Amino acid sequence: MVHMIPIADPLDSRIDGFRNLNHAEKRRDHAGSDGVVIGEGSLVTDRMLASWCPPTQFLGTEAGLARLTAMPDYGELAASTPFYLATEDVISECVGFHFNRHIFALAPRPAPRAVEDVLAHSPRTLAVLEGLNDHANIGSIFRNAAALGVGGVLTGAGCADPLYRRSVRVSMGHVLRIPFAPCTGGPNDWQEPTFAQLRAAGYRILALTPAHDAQVLADVAEGGKVAFIVGAEGPGLRRKTMRLADARVQIPMQIGVDSLNVATSAAVAFYERARTHH
Amino acid sequence: MVHMIPIADPLDSRIDGFRNLNHAEKRRDHAGSDGVVIGEGSLVTDRMLASWCPPTQFLGTEAGLARLTAMPDYGELAASTPFYLATEDVISECVGFHFNRHIFALAPRPAPRAVEDVLAHSPRTLAVLEGLNDHANIGSIFRNAAALGVGGVLTGAGCADPLYRRSVRVSMGHVLRIPFAPCTGGPNDWQEPTFAQLRAAGYRILALTPAHDAQVLADVAEGGKVAFIVGAEGPGLRRKTMRLADARVQIPMQIGVDSLNVATSAAVAFYERARTHH
Repeated sequence: MVHMIPIADPLDSRIDGFRNLNHAEKRRDHAGSDGVVIGEGSLVTDRMLASWCPPTQFLGTEAGLARLTAMPDYGELAASTPFYLATEDVISECVGFHFNRHIFALAPRPAPRAVEDVLAHSPRTLAVLEGLNDHANIGSIFRNAAALGVGGVLTGAGCADPLYRRSVRVSMGHVLRIPFAPCTGGPNDWQEPTFAQLRAAGYRILALTPAHDAQVLADVAEGGKVAFIVGAEGPGLRRKTMRLADARVQIPMQIGVDSLNVATSAAVAFYERARTHH
Repeated sequence: MVHMIPIADPLDSRIDGFRNLNHAEKRRDHAGSDGVVIGEGSLVTDRMLASWCPPTQFLGTEAGLARLTAMPDYGELAASTPFYLATEDVISECVGFHFNRHIFALAPRPAPRAVEDVLAHSPRTLAVLEGLNDHANIGSIFRNAAALGVGGVLTGAGCADPLYRRSVRVSMGHVLRIPFAPCTGGPNDWQEPTFAQLRAAGYRILALTPAHDAQVLADVAEGGKVAFIVGAEGPGLRRKTMRLADARVQIPMQIGVDSLNVATSAAVAFYERARTHH
């Protein structure tokens, strides 16, 4: 039997790590020295356990925690990792919203990787994100990357935090499995140093754009190592980024229609790479 | 100058069509005889004006309504269509949530089309949806269809309403431009009559599935007319649906990774059709 620690008071300081998760300033899953990573629901929790960011605390209902006891190594886990047991109401009051996914996991936020770390395993395809300030889009891109065999992600200027709770959830936990790192350099000059690293490692750098004068994805995406750069919907990629890339690439779309969502565009580009990998 | 009708009281009955838009029962944008279609924001409103579902009322702030006066035919429009002018606060109180997109448009809900109407223009690619009960996924599929040249959508058993406000918004208004119809037949026996209509019109029916023993998308999607069936994430397509389709088709994915989101899978399938259309 796993030793569970009952929590009756939502204000109990032992579960402070899970407190105010909807509060912009008070939540602790921010980047920074005190930052944590919060996973929610059994699928993400399971994935965290197998990741480079293993949980150091759990908070769940009886049903949520009981699942963990079915794991082969739960005894070892429970010896080092507190299982805080509470009702749905107590959990909801602590986290600040109605919660019905039964379990949260908390891990210390890992130190950021460097670009070299992401390139170390020489993934065939990379995604480079610029100005993606939407946590759901970031999460979706990691999910799509995992499904379609993209082995690393670099986050350029203006990107939201992949380890924010919503990104983690939307990614189905894949932000904890696919290596990612911030690009090298400052917010306005990350392109030169990062692209230099990518080129030295043998990558072609393809900038995705809805522009109808760009090269067609299927004509250029095959072979070798490729890094796709994608930008936020609306503004798209910066001119400098497109100018310094090796090619501007489009997914052919109907004229006069808004472009695809950025995570969907990325999925199509990833698919094209997977399709042509023989 | 457009004649605008100032509304100072959020309870004014003239704007009842826009009332309680977040309320599950009270909102009026449900299917049914009293149903309406609500568009929000300038992009969707503009698209409604050019659609088969033109607005009969507007509710907006000064900024929101002023945009419409820049249209070449605004005089004609304003003669027949009331422009209700209110502050952001009045609008927010009426609709029941904070609203900062400046304009709403309301149209009577059009009568549902039949499958024959969708097939009438003989679109090269169709999407058939089964059990898609998520309004955002429905909306995304219409957006992806519009971008990638899919000319019609059929909604099978268990699908959410494409004309619900959230679907309309996420689709960027494309639910009002791409013809769609409910499938022929009842919730448990729509497959035979609908598939018979599709086959009579020359369509191959390809059921998308994450199953690794299905045929590979790129091997079977080229040529002729194709109808892709997609199902809800989680349950996926019903066995009967897959059995009665002409082929089961997969987007090759990494083993052990959750499949792509249903709208993303649909986008990849649509892309594959567009890519091979020479």
